[in-house]
Amino acid sequence: MTGRFITLEGGEGVGKSTQIRALADELTVRGIEVVVTREPGGSEGAEAIRELLLHGDDDRWDARGEALLFAAARADHVARTIRPALERGAWVLCDRFVDSTRAYQGGGGGVTDADILALHRFGSQNLWPDRTFLLRVSPAEAARRLAARDIEGSDRMGSKPDEYQARLAARFDEMAAAEPLRWRVIDAGAAAPVVTATIVAELQDWLS
Amino acid sequence: MTGRFITLEGGEGVGKSTQIRALADELTVRGIEVVVTREPGGSEGAEAIRELLLHGDDDRWDARGEALLFAAARADHVARTIRPALERGAWVLCDRFVDSTRAYQGGGGGVTDADILALHRFGSQNLWPDRTFLLRVSPAEAARRLAARDIEGSDRMGSKPDEYQARLAARFDEMAAAEPLRWRVIDAGAAAPVVTATIVAELQDWLS
Repeated sequence: MTGRFITLEGGEGVGKSTQIRALADELTVRGIEVVVTREPGGSEGAEAIRELLLHGDDDRWDARGEALLFAAARADHVARTIRPALERGAWVLCDRFVDSTRAYQGGGGGVTDADILALHRFGSQNLWPDRTFLLRVSPAEAARRLAARDIEGSDRMGSKPDEYQARLAARFDEMAAAEPLRWRVIDAGAAAPVVTATIVAELQDWLS
Repeated sequence: MTGRFITLEGGEGVGKSTQIRALADELTVRGIEVVVTREPGGSEGAEAIRELLLHGDDDRWDARGEALLFAAARADHVARTIRPALERGAWVLCDRFVDSTRAYQGGGGGVTDADILALHRFGSQNLWPDRTFLLRVSPAEAARRLAARDIEGSDRMGSKPDEYQARLAARFDEMAAAEPLRWRVIDAGAAAPVVTATIVAELQDWLS
């Protein structure tokens, strides 16, 4: 048996980590081995790189250096955590993956989407999720949820102005539209259990 | 006036750091602003990445992750240290650069020379040295010099068996032969002041 690689994507405050935990529970009770992980990070080396990425001044890294560090962290994460789990048949649930790099870093500072895809082919030998859920909420709801948090959003990748968030949301929408077989767009504005049920319904082809 | 970018390459124990210091003195007395730097490292971000690269277990990073980390460090080093120095007219003397990555990492673990060149085009926008000195000593002399050191060669990039050193030397020779206009091969087995004089003689076209 081979595992399934599922990623959750979207802006800040859309509920990715809440949904990953709930989805892990739903799968576990069905007897599936689940590995929950996140990016940047998810392996010892990648977590060390995460520290470099998330701390320090805003201009600590330029766009190219940042893209290379994300690719290095992902290479380690894929080689040490994700591939071994998939090979033993586990389902891997990952909070952000290369699509977040494409959305956040692609198109800025001379880094194109093609550059990020090339780095991904090299570093992670082109491992792509089997299914990617794009969690969407209205900008007002995302802002409300972020405000309710204490500290997250305060690092180098943290909260940016509304215009930035809107551009980010548009990039995710474009990626989802370009690959409809891989992406499922989820209305994440509903109550958390409703959102979880929607996601589980979108996995029925693998569960039944 | 535009600066000159000079790199010193070769295996361990060939005298690169000694020669860089002596060369810096020779240029400084001629009224040239000299920036001495080294890889991995040479800028604040790159030094932080250097820590990740040089410490930890031998298998801390796989070849792809390592190549990406070197490229990230180099991108920062080029953007923050080397290009600004060259733009103000300084001569930059760098102890190892992308050719070391090609010699040490290229060809191992699924990382090809073409991969490293592609990462260099992306990360450092294809900045190449104006001149590269390959310092060569006999394997016996290199071993003697390394044995006389206290601690260097004890990190993750440290001393490897003779067969490895021979393959490394062969890779440097191949690169030098492939680009004879950029590379100058220096017999570094002579006394240090003689080697310095040889290097300075190879820079006369820029100095006179």
